[in-house]
Amino acid sequence: MEPEFSAAAHELVDWIANYIRTVDQYPVRARTAPGDIARAMAAHAPANGEPLEVILRDAREKLLPGITHWQHPGFLGYFGITASTPGILAEMLAAALNVNGMIWATSPAATELEQVVMRWLAEVLGIGDAWFGQITDTASTSTLLALAAARDADPSIDARGRGLAGRADLPALRVYCSEFAHSSVDKAVMTLGIGHQNLVKIPVDQRFRLRPDALASAIAADRAAGYRPIAIVATVGTTSVASIDPVNAIADIAEREKLWLHVDASYAGAAAIAPEFRWVLDGVMRVDSLVVNPHKWMAVPVGCSALWVRHAESLRRAFTLVPEYLRTSAGDVLDYHDVGFQLGRPFRALKLWMVMRAYGVNGLAGIIRKHCALAKQFAAWVRAGDGWEASAPVELSLVCFRYAPKGMSPAEADAANTRILETVNKGGHALLSHTKLNDRVVLRLAIGNFRTEEQHIHTAWADLQAAARGET
Amino acid sequence: MEPEFSAAAHELVDWIANYIRTVDQYPVRARTAPGDIARAMAAHAPANGEPLEVILRDAREKLLPGITHWQHPGFLGYFGITASTPGILAEMLAAALNVNGMIWATSPAATELEQVVMRWLAEVLGIGDAWFGQITDTASTSTLLALAAARDADPSIDARGRGLAGRADLPALRVYCSEFAHSSVDKAVMTLGIGHQNLVKIPVDQRFRLRPDALASAIAADRAAGYRPIAIVATVGTTSVASIDPVNAIADIAEREKLWLHVDASYAGAAAIAPEFRWVLDGVMRVDSLVVNPHKWMAVPVGCSALWVRHAESLRRAFTLVPEYLRTSAGDVLDYHDVGFQLGRPFRALKLWMVMRAYGVNGLAGIIRKHCALAKQFAAWVRAGDGWEASAPVELSLVCFRYAPKGMSPAEADAANTRILETVNKGGHALLSHTKLNDRVVLRLAIGNFRTEEQHIHTAWADLQAAARGET
Repeated sequence: MEPEFSAAAHELVDWIANYIRTVDQYPVRARTAPGDIARAMAAHAPANGEPLEVILRDAREKLLPGITHWQHPGFLGYFGITASTPGILAEMLAAALNVNGMIWATSPAATELEQVVMRWLAEVLGIGDAWFGQITDTASTSTLLALAAARDADPSIDARGRGLAGRADLPALRVYCSEFAHSSVDKAVMTLGIGHQNLVKIPVDQRFRLRPDALASAIAADRAAGYRPIAIVATVGTTSVASIDPVNAIADIAEREKLWLHVDASYAGAAAIAPEFRWVLDGVMRVDSLVVNPHKWMAVPVGCSALWVRHAESLRRAFTLVPEYLRTSAGDVLDYHDVGFQLGRPFRALKLWMVMRAYGVNGLAGIIRKHCALAKQFAAWVRAGDGWEASAPVELSLVCFRYAPKGMSPAEADAANTRILETVNKGGHALLSHTKLNDRVVLRLAIGNFRTEEQHIHTAWADLQAAARGET
Repeated sequence: MEPEFSAAAHELVDWIANYIRTVDQYPVRARTAPGDIARAMAAHAPANGEPLEVILRDAREKLLPGITHWQHPGFLGYFGITASTPGILAEMLAAALNVNGMIWATSPAATELEQVVMRWLAEVLGIGDAWFGQITDTASTSTLLALAAARDADPSIDARGRGLAGRADLPALRVYCSEFAHSSVDKAVMTLGIGHQNLVKIPVDQRFRLRPDALASAIAADRAAGYRPIAIVATVGTTSVASIDPVNAIADIAEREKLWLHVDASYAGAAAIAPEFRWVLDGVMRVDSLVVNPHKWMAVPVGCSALWVRHAESLRRAFTLVPEYLRTSAGDVLDYHDVGFQLGRPFRALKLWMVMRAYGVNGLAGIIRKHCALAKQFAAWVRAGDGWEASAPVELSLVCFRYAPKGMSPAEADAANTRILETVNKGGHALLSHTKLNDRVVLRLAIGNFRTEEQHIHTAWADLQAAARGET
């Protein structure tokens, strides 16, 4: 009855091995037009089962053209990610075991390995051991959980129990972050009923870092106006520009004002694995919660987001609820469903454990170091390039830059950069993305894939220059 | 630098093939004591990389004892799930491609295949095509999204923008569900700032179904008391007892009261694949949102939760927010991040597509049919058993039952059933779970694993009887 596994799986392993080896021969960005893939699919589910070989062939022939190859070493947009070999193996094993680690008893190994690797990772990042860690699917979820804990930290608020509406005792709550914070912070306050209008975006300095003085003023003004500040989000490595908010100065304010301080280090936190970049997490020992995404710069397949809070209790206060059917006689154990809103929990610790072991701390640090050096190299080319300029300091592995030759108006340069980006991405050797800095279009080259080498950023640079010259 | 994939992967495929074949030889429930697995792990991440073979050997030798084998055909607790062979293959391929389908452009195939399979599934379930579908990680997330849409359906509430606190114009919001609804509903109202006290639990009838008359009264009383009712959650297949709320009668009330109606059919919805069970979704054509979990009764590996709403717009109203760095020139395409709070999106559609094709509609229906027949069979044994009783009607593949011989007080019977459960689960052939019905301890035997056959429930029944007789 069940389709036979071995033959198809061995064939797929060979295909995957070849894919990893040859992924640089695909165009990075999918070239299909909207609707092409949908039209290539059958209109209805089949009445009867089809052979695995046929399905896998369809995946290769009909779906692959619609894949943007995040594994291509020329993928330099957003933040790069890597399906490392230990990561793929871990996902294979996790899929076969297919456990749901919702409570300790439904797989002690899932719960305990998660605790172990979260301790490993905290140690490797140099943030100490006074944390409670868990792995979620995305930084969006991690930040949502952290801000839920922040919201419910003050028992007089009791959003969890009483809700926020219809209460004469409760003014509007306020959360603070820089104008460069990630959209997941906006979505968290929207989801939690705090409201987007109550997320106060603090201006940044010339290096795109949250300005503590402006933060302090905003909090003071809000208190005077009758709002209830509850939390601050600092970003270590903003999405647009990888700027690093001054966590220590922000922590001074958070401590004085008794506000929860959450640090979003989804991308840049991993840099702290390399001792010379440990400074990116300066001050994090003082904060209440921290998110770092191993599925970004640590070669763990999506999704694997590491969330730490000081005490499990802060998350339990917001989320604990144990229905009868989940009670067990296992005694004093950690049931992870109790510290979040998602009951189902795939065995995500496995891939983090396998990747950390397969690369080792030195292996991971070496790649991060290499990526940062490549970014410096690329930025040097840009600065030396005719008509090109770096648009922001290169803190880590992200370069923000722009084509703006003399005599071109800022608006003309915006249009030129938009055109250059599209030309390069269409070309297929590299994929870059963009953002806006000081209201001007800026290109982003982000190095994060473990297979990216100098040749790939060199090709990207050649393509960028050709596009600027009007070649396609 | 990167660990070589092929040799380790082929070896792992052989191990997985053998695991699937022989999983019934493991004890279902892990026998490790709290802390055993953690102690078996290294205290620190290794400085240098280790060979994949060593890591995989450790996984087999040190982690496997801490695995509760959800793939064991004797896994009859909670709701059973299956790592089917097409499901495992899909996870292998998804891990290797490792795309993030946050927007259409970052892999058109991920977005378009998701739209295609969600249409397939809606058709197969017989719920029509007037839906917008998406796949999330868990039913918890799906229900959270649905209730966020419900909360923001009335523009005068604008929880998303203005938040719920500090508003003189806004009374407490209210949501309604049966006292047998899943804890994910509780967690959703807690998370969304609606508040747990504002989730009104409606009493059930003798078949554990939400009582529409009690619902209507509760809504009327709340309106009279100044609350603002916003949504009702009906459950098709409750976790404790698989009871099926009368969706049509509830939809009458929702329409009259202009309330959002969400249906949680996470477990039981899949039954509608078999024509004779299509009645479980009666009335669903009238509701606003619906969740069915293919990772439960459809042999798709965790996590794969299917959420439908009438219009993408209802989710966009709650969640849309497009930062500059996610804007593309792709034109009029669906960017899935825009209809939820999670930015990261693994390629989950792949496994649903591969499983539906590999089994076909008839294959899936056949297994659901078999599971329901096995449940009837087991219930017949229980009813004929000396001192045993069925505790609820068997609607689908879940049997609730209890050992309560004449002369035993209810409290004594509770203790006996708790002991029987622990004895059976310790035995290793089967894993059952429990719940409480009418305040009495009741055992749950839930059939959902595609590899479960009559022999496995027969063994479970033999073990239960032996445990009741005091044998261990």
